[in-house]
Amino acid sequence: MARLKFKNLDETRAFATVGSFARVDVTDISADRVMKYESPGAEGLRFNFAAKAVDETILSGLAALASEQAVIEKYRALADGEIMNSGEGRMVLHHLARGRLGRQVMHEGRNVQEFYQEQIDRVKAFARRIHSAEITGSTGKSFTDVVQIGIGGSDLGPRALAIALENWYRAEHGRPHLLPHFISNVDPDDAAAVVARVNPETTLFIVVSKSGTTQETLTNEAFVRRLISESGAKKIDPAKHIVAVTSESSPMAKGGAYLDSFFIDDFIGGRYSSSSAVGAVVLSIAFGPQVFQEFLRGAHAADRNALEPDILKNPALLDALIGVYERNVLGYPTTAVLPYSQALSRFPAHLQQLDMESNGKSVNRDGEAVRYATGPVVFGEPGTNGQHSFYQLLHQGTDIVPLQFIGFRESQLGTDIEFAGSSSQTKLNANLAAQVIAFARGKSDDNPNKSFAGGRPSSVLYAGRLSPSVLGAILAHYENKVMFQGFLWNVNSFDQEGVQLGKELTKTVLEGKTDATLSAYASRLGIG
Amino acid sequence: MARLKFKNLDETRAFATVGSFARVDVTDISADRVMKYESPGAEGLRFNFAAKAVDETILSGLAALASEQAVIEKYRALADGEIMNSGEGRMVLHHLARGRLGRQVMHEGRNVQEFYQEQIDRVKAFARRIHSAEITGSTGKSFTDVVQIGIGGSDLGPRALAIALENWYRAEHGRPHLLPHFISNVDPDDAAAVVARVNPETTLFIVVSKSGTTQETLTNEAFVRRLISESGAKKIDPAKHIVAVTSESSPMAKGGAYLDSFFIDDFIGGRYSSSSAVGAVVLSIAFGPQVFQEFLRGAHAADRNALEPDILKNPALLDALIGVYERNVLGYPTTAVLPYSQALSRFPAHLQQLDMESNGKSVNRDGEAVRYATGPVVFGEPGTNGQHSFYQLLHQGTDIVPLQFIGFRESQLGTDIEFAGSSSQTKLNANLAAQVIAFARGKSDDNPNKSFAGGRPSSVLYAGRLSPSVLGAILAHYENKVMFQGFLWNVNSFDQEGVQLGKELTKTVLEGKTDATLSAYASRLGIG
Repeated sequence: MARLKFKNLDETRAFATVGSFARVDVTDISADRVMKYESPGAEGLRFNFAAKAVDETILSGLAALASEQAVIEKYRALADGEIMNSGEGRMVLHHLARGRLGRQVMHEGRNVQEFYQEQIDRVKAFARRIHSAEITGSTGKSFTDVVQIGIGGSDLGPRALAIALENWYRAEHGRPHLLPHFISNVDPDDAAAVVARVNPETTLFIVVSKSGTTQETLTNEAFVRRLISESGAKKIDPAKHIVAVTSESSPMAKGGAYLDSFFIDDFIGGRYSSSSAVGAVVLSIAFGPQVFQEFLRGAHAADRNALEPDILKNPALLDALIGVYERNVLGYPTTAVLPYSQALSRFPAHLQQLDMESNGKSVNRDGEAVRYATGPVVFGEPGTNGQHSFYQLLHQGTDIVPLQFIGFRESQLGTDIEFAGSSSQTKLNANLAAQVIAFARGKSDDNPNKSFAGGRPSSVLYAGRLSPSVLGAILAHYENKVMFQGFLWNVNSFDQEGVQLGKELTKTVLEGKTDATLSAYASRLGIG
Repeated sequence: MARLKFKNLDETRAFATVGSFARVDVTDISADRVMKYESPGAEGLRFNFAAKAVDETILSGLAALASEQAVIEKYRALADGEIMNSGEGRMVLHHLARGRLGRQVMHEGRNVQEFYQEQIDRVKAFARRIHSAEITGSTGKSFTDVVQIGIGGSDLGPRALAIALENWYRAEHGRPHLLPHFISNVDPDDAAAVVARVNPETTLFIVVSKSGTTQETLTNEAFVRRLISESGAKKIDPAKHIVAVTSESSPMAKGGAYLDSFFIDDFIGGRYSSSSAVGAVVLSIAFGPQVFQEFLRGAHAADRNALEPDILKNPALLDALIGVYERNVLGYPTTAVLPYSQALSRFPAHLQQLDMESNGKSVNRDGEAVRYATGPVVFGEPGTNGQHSFYQLLHQGTDIVPLQFIGFRESQLGTDIEFAGSSSQTKLNANLAAQVIAFARGKSDDNPNKSFAGGRPSSVLYAGRLSPSVLGAILAHYENKVMFQGFLWNVNSFDQEGVQLGKELTKTVLEGKTDATLSAYASRLGIG
């Protein structure tokens, strides 16, 4: 393997150069530019960046930056099993869960891809036995509902995907095999409310924790076990109603307590784990293994696309470069993700974790402080809802927020209505197109209160219809974008040391070993 | 009425002064400070600001700023019916919907408070007739579900409140009278999915649009009407299943099409309308008029509290002042709202609208450009979920994000479990307390990747239990905070001209009267 060179962003020649180029004003975008500034991705995805503040000069500068930071080489090295999670000394192999991009990766004598495939195959067989009622609840009834218990990456990604797929599945196949639900918060009201909506006799629970020690998840598991045991006249056996997704070495992997166990390893981080058993079990049980397979296929196609060195043919890389340009040259501290699709209602929450947990770092991959801004604050809600909410600030606030629109030519359900001369889907997309122009162009008015400065950049990532494979491609687009940005910023996008301190201090509170200041806070909240 | 003086923030002496004071380092907070830096609010709410970057000197400077900007006088004037929505030439009367704070306000010979009360009384009577099955669906069956169709302020606030109250109601009274649902997005998949979950024969729909012309809402109404008419063997009469909430002058106010209509006026903006019929109908029908009354009572108590001139006894004002200090002196562009309560899972989305739509402005109330930052980007998700997601960036990212925690000593449902020596509620609050300290204090480590700089400010707004009156007080806290910040920044927090341009351009797309660039975008999204 060729030796990779790692440089901080501000040590590259290309970054200094691109910063010296004249800024681009997006208030005057031509139709020609809309046609031309579009990059084709996998599964019919297209990334239109006509309303981003770039031109040929800046694009060539960004291409030079990608080249100088050797981002494609680093991606190839990552896929080949190099230790790219430097802080934790681990490989980064979430791509391998959907298909191989480079060499066979071995770990302790095991072919890692085969291990991932074996788990997916086991999930497939298990899901089929659930669907055929070969496996039933302990009182003999078929399962009707599936509840995933997890937090962070064991929750946000799978939940966003389940919401994204449910309507598509209903349109194509009818009611899901089992209806998916999720419990995450340690707030007991979360678990209690979900459990109240399902019948424990016909509900399968999935407990997801890689370490097998996640406090919130184990607490919710205990909570659910008690509710199952206490519910109804018939005695339900929790061991027949709960499966585990965990690492082979975790305390949860020991037999007896679960109906079955599916395994993950240390090379797929929580926020990248939707493609592993963490997403496979719940999605395969709810929508069938074939749907999950399609999802993986779309993600793998996008992963292959992301190997393309030409930045104009690599939407994930182009999106990453433009994001770094906006963050470090233009100085914008936030970015909004705005899907014009109700199916993606929780996708921004997943991207928030994916992006902010990966690149919200102040040290480079060698642990040295960086002197430039890294990951931005990411937020968003579905359009058109956002238009009637926070878009006011986006249009007329004092700060510029770069925007990432997501859209689809067709709706998922296909149930639509003509009203006032157009369908709902047409109205939805007319809004999306209009917003791009409104943000870019602005509008002057004699009344300054009705004036729009414009010059607010946005991109549109769009496809035909949100199917499982398109969803996989979109997920992989963002995962790869975040990875490329990590390479550009020279940070380790695959650890999360920032979550540790809170955990340690929480432990001191629960063990009553805390100092006076923390005690003072705890006592105000009813502890001690 | 005394003549009010309006000055831009940067024209005040106090702002220059407070900016000159030494900055406060929050890495070393004493227990004494935790006891002392706490401001009591209504309904047992307390606002703890010990971990905010203020001291006696800065607080006195902020008090001087509040005084120089005459924020209490402006609030009194607003409550007395002065035209505080300057751009639109309207009064601002959402406080009056929960109780009178000053003079009787008259409009065109009508006592406005009596009008609001009359609507609430009509809602109360209507809800009781629904609950007693005196009013049924057109096939004679009792209503079991209620679906609100609205967008923006007609959706986010009522939806956040309904989610916040459902578990409390279940714990206190059992199943809600009718189960609440919401449709907002013009994406047809949104309405189709909600309608698929309910039985039209037993469902009451509420269409909410002040103007009676909101495109998304009317489209969804038409969509629902068609689905009702087409559903099932028995013919259902839509006119017996839909009520309207609108202004008296709107096209929707004309008789015939609705089972009943409830009215709102121009003096309560969408994002402030949860206390009006916009929130009253759905919440009274779901949880009973008494619950809504309690909610109003709590909000009114907080409104009265906000009249207090001493900033240390006025949490809404103090929160506002600290926010302006963070935005304009410390220069932080975003702020996160982090409720440690699953019941408040959609409260940050409501606050996002409330705050960003109110104060995301670049001109002052007279339409002149301001030279300072106004409203920040607001985002958030419930803790402990956020801890396993974007907190990484909050702890170790390159930018500082001021934090607003919300907590409760007790859970809503009271269903809890002891696990590993503590209850879920204790774990939840131990996490909250620990996070405040972790953000403020940080931690040095020989490994820079495990170091936390600290110095990240936060406040905690907390109460005993999230009941209807506490919820009202929390909502009013934020509404009043946003109002006070508008006074400090000298912007009009009550209009939203920034939403107009997108609407106009959407119309050009739907009418086929658009220019080449916008057409190019529209055609990519399948239009034309």
